[in-house]
Order: sequence, then C-alpha cells, then structure tokens
Amino acid sequence: MNTSWVKAFASATVANVSCGFDVFGFALQQPGDEVELRLNNSGKVTLLDITGKGEQLPRDASQNTAGIAVKHFLNDHHPSHGAEIILHKNLPRSSGMGSSAASAVAALVAVNHAVGNPLSKMALLPYAMEAERVACGAAHADNVAPALLGGFVLIRDKKTLDIITLNVPDELYAVVVHPHIELKTSDARQALRTTISLTDAITQWANTAALVAGLEQGDFELIGRAMCDVVAEPVRANFIPGYHMVKQAALKANALGCGISGSGPSVFALCKGEHCAIQIMNAMQQAFVSVPLNSDGYVSAINKKGASIYTH
Amino acid sequence: MNTSWVKAFASATVANVSCGFDVFGFALQQPGDEVELRLNNSGKVTLLDITGKGEQLPRDASQNTAGIAVKHFLNDHHPSHGAEIILHKNLPRSSGMGSSAASAVAALVAVNHAVGNPLSKMALLPYAMEAERVACGAAHADNVAPALLGGFVLIRDKKTLDIITLNVPDELYAVVVHPHIELKTSDARQALRTTISLTDAITQWANTAALVAGLEQGDFELIGRAMCDVVAEPVRANFIPGYHMVKQAALKANALGCGISGSGPSVFALCKGEHCAIQIMNAMQQAFVSVPLNSDGYVSAINKKGASIYTH
Repeated sequence: MNTSWVKAFASATVANVSCGFDVFGFALQQPGDEVELRLNNSGKVTLLDITGKGEQLPRDASQNTAGIAVKHFLNDHHPSHGAEIILHKNLPRSSGMGSSAASAVAALVAVNHAVGNPLSKMALLPYAMEAERVACGAAHADNVAPALLGGFVLIRDKKTLDIITLNVPDELYAVVVHPHIELKTSDARQALRTTISLTDAITQWANTAALVAGLEQGDFELIGRAMCDVVAEPVRANFIPGYHMVKQAALKANALGCGISGSGPSVFALCKGEHCAIQIMNAMQQAFVSVPLNSDGYVSAINKKGASIYTH
Repeated sequence: MNTSWVKAFASATVANVSCGFDVFGFALQQPGDEVELRLNNSGKVTLLDITGKGEQLPRDASQNTAGIAVKHFLNDHHPSHGAEIILHKNLPRSSGMGSSAASAVAALVAVNHAVGNPLSKMALLPYAMEAERVACGAAHADNVAPALLGGFVLIRDKKTLDIITLNVPDELYAVVVHPHIELKTSDARQALRTTISLTDAITQWANTAALVAGLEQGDFELIGRAMCDVVAEPVRANFIPGYHMVKQAALKANALGCGISGSGPSVFALCKGEHCAIQIMNAMQQAFVSVPLNSDGYVSAINKKGASIYTH
C-alpha cells in the first residue's frame, strides 16, 4: 500500500449554461478545491482538516462529498483500506460554482492515484455522482462531469453516462461572479415547474442545438444568440438580487451572453478573449455593488484538462 | 422584361429529424419538384399546368404554394409583372416530404432568376414561409429552409430567421420511405399536447444538442444515439400503420436511427454510406408490405446545394 500523501485539484464548474438546463457544464481553470489524501489500513475514511472556505462544512467524512466519494470508491475496490483526507476548500458552498462536485472529484482523483490509477476518469464519474446525490439530493452530472473530465461537456443521458466533450474555440473565456448570498440548489430547483409549454420547450432545444453549433463552428456571435434560457432563468433570477442589472452590465461590456451559473447565485458570462473577460467581470461586480452586494469575480479560459494530480 | 422560360428544381426535405421537432430539417438530392416559369406584363400569376403527382392539387394559382409564393414576390418587387407557371410535381402531397415547400421554393428561385436575381436565397425565405402558412396553416421554416438553402439546417429562431447550416459528414445518407396513405400536417399537429413534462423536455434538448455534436464531429454512433424523440413520435406513430415494425427493420439493417419525416406518414432513416442506405430502404419497404402498405422508397446523400436553376 502506498501511504505517501497525494494531492489533487478539481476546478469550479458552470452547469446549465443558459439554455442547457441539466445537460451542459464547463470547467474553469481556477478557482478550485484541493484534496490531500493518504491511504492507511484502518478501513475508515477520516477528514483530518478542512482549510479555507470550509468553516461551515461538516467534519464527518460521511457527510462531506470528498469523504463520501472516497468511501464508496474504497468499498468497491479496496475494502480493507482507509484514508485520511485534508480538504483545501477554495470554492464557497451553495454558490452555484460546483463546490461539492469539485471536492468529490479532487478526492476521487487523489484516491484513484494512490491505489495505482485502476479506473479511468469516466469510471470515476458514478462515484462523484453518488456523492452529489448525498449532497444535493439528486445525482446530477453537470458539475462533476466537467470538473472531472474538463472541457465543455454535454450530458446526453445521465443514466447511461453518455457524455460528449464539445470542441470550443481557444479564445472562449468565462467570467463568474459570486455575490455573497447563499442559495441552496434544492430550493432553487423546487421553484421550477414540472411541466413547460411545448412552445418554450422548442425555443429551448433550438438554443441548445445552436449553442453546440456555435461552439463547434467557433461562431462567437451564434454562441451569444443561443445563450437564451426561457425555462430556469425566469424563475431563478428572482432569487438573485440585481440579476437583470448585472446581466445588462455584462452584455454592455461585450459579453456574448450571460446567465445563472448552476442554480445560482453566481452569475456567469462568456466572451471572446481575456481582456474582454476582465472588463466584463468588473462591470458585473460594479453592478452588484449597487444592489448592494459584495462579490468575488473570476476570469478563466475553458479548462480542457480536468481534474489533476499535483506532481512534485 | 425577360420573357423566356426559366426552370428550377427544389428537393424533398425531412423536417424535425427525430428529436428536433420544429427546428431541424435537411434536403435530399432527389426526388423534387420542378417549376417552369415565364414572366409577362399581365400583373397576374397563372398556373398553366400541373404534371406528375399533382392531379388533386388546386389549379388556382392563389391556392397553390408555387403560385402564392410567386404572387407575393412579384407584388413586392415587380407589381406590374405577371407570370405563367408549369409545375412538375414529383413529390406526393401530405407525405411528410416537404411537398408544398418544394413547389414554393422552386417557383421562388425561378421567378427570382427571371427578374435578374435581386434577392439572396435567405431573402427569399419569408416568401416561401408565407406560402407554407397558406398551405399548412402555420409559417414553418423546417421544410422551406433546407429546400431553399440545402444542407442540414437548424432553425434557431423562425421569427428572426436565424438559420444555421450544420456541417455533416460526407458519408451521411438518408432513406425516405413513403407509405401510400395520406396524412394532413394539421391533423398530426393537433394531436400533440401543448405542454410537456420538464423531464421529457430535458431529454429532448439533450438529444438536439447531441445530434448537432454528432453531425459536426462526424460521429455516426452519436448521431444514432441522439435520434430519439420523446415528444412527437409517441403521438404521431399512431397515425402510421406498422411504424414500429418499419423502424425496427431499419435499425436491424444498420440504420443509425429512424424516425417520422415531418409529420409523416413518410418514415426516414440516416446511415453511413449508400450501400447501407439501399439495404435499409429495402428492409423498410418490406416491413410496410406486411402491414400491408405499398410504398415508394428513396435513397440520397444530403443535398448541400439547395434549390437550383436548370442551365442549358
């Protein structure tokens, strides 16, 4: 048994991406969570410490996505093994930035590495989804899949894990602004209706199709036109004070489009190039100031690599 | 005024394409309708003759999509002009193969050519949609856009006519089998419900997104997996005797996927290569024989050229 410390990174992710409710997600390069992990033969998973933004998180490994994921992984593959985990939490929880997914994914990549990488990233996905199910009440893949695999992904079918990595133009940049309010995924989800009009549904699938075409063809203007959400945004925007003002500020600063990251409260925008992204971030944060809400802002290209091990 | 005869061709089209209800359509190379047109200074549009499969079509130009389209075009651009039209009807009406669209589009390309091509194909589209509105009761673009522009198109927004031509792999072939029953688009449409479950809607937009990804990436297996329709097919299949048997026969003969062409009764399949397409067509027609229903079968690559003028 390899009992040396292993350290892994998994990034923030933006799920839904406007029109793609429950089916699109992409990974940022930064920020992200880090997990340090060391195997032992205790048969138990222990969370030694949580640093950074994890003050309010449970220290019980069975209630933390990192711990849950590692426990399930070891149960299946090395039931006599245990592990000690230190979680460096850089993503705020309930932010809509895939915080719970990042912890689970970093932990899985670490434990898989520690036991000699028997599983592919795709094979790790079900463990990450199970951890999400415990944390959020539903086994969604739209944060864990991009956090793990990297890139801009389409979850065609979450039951069979039919996940497609889309080609994106190199100059595509993302902005994420996290206003300092908390919003539970389960609350934001409950606000959605269980049926929608066929007309709205057609609008939505025209746009999901168009967003893929825009990304694959490198057509930035089409990406922008396709970033239109008639299903979740009209409901969830009500949970984010100043949302429409922030969106307007982003669009005025030349964002291709702007929407709610996951179930919010973070707001994201896509644009062409890093310079433009910084201007958009500033404009969005300024708009939140007038609410008034403090916020953190992030700028990143699409992270095509996915979760990774730190090598010395 | 150019008073010589002009002759144009516009092909059959497959609208919806399984998951893409109201948003996808592609053009076949054959069969198609032909329109011969000659300008005059009568200010009137006359339908001189309809040959081929047009026995039951109205001879009144104001009730025929070719005549309606030409009338609107001339009203806007050359109100003193008239035209004589001969329509060679190769597409059966109410077949789900875009018959009314092909007539309108061929007529528009002919009249535009006769007056010196002042309009682009995109600028002709509203006239074709207006003709569709009169013929079908709704101004849809999913047949007229591919018939006019060619290729595999996505109608992102029919109000602003935001139409995207998708890249498709060269080896992509289509099979269309038209069983000899008539089905009115308006009847098939009325059977659909006006609301759908959010769960079904998500499934559908995951698949529209995946179909675009499959086409753009040239991933034939993904194209097949994405050809899944949980909205229109479950309802409309009931109007087509033997539908599920025909679909099974197509899939068994290595179709990537199989669905209802437009609102039916024609059934289409996509596959890789012409040889495979012919085998699929035979299998589908054989399955219709056991219903029993006679049918016509067609095999075609995707028509990337769109409607065209015959040059001498």
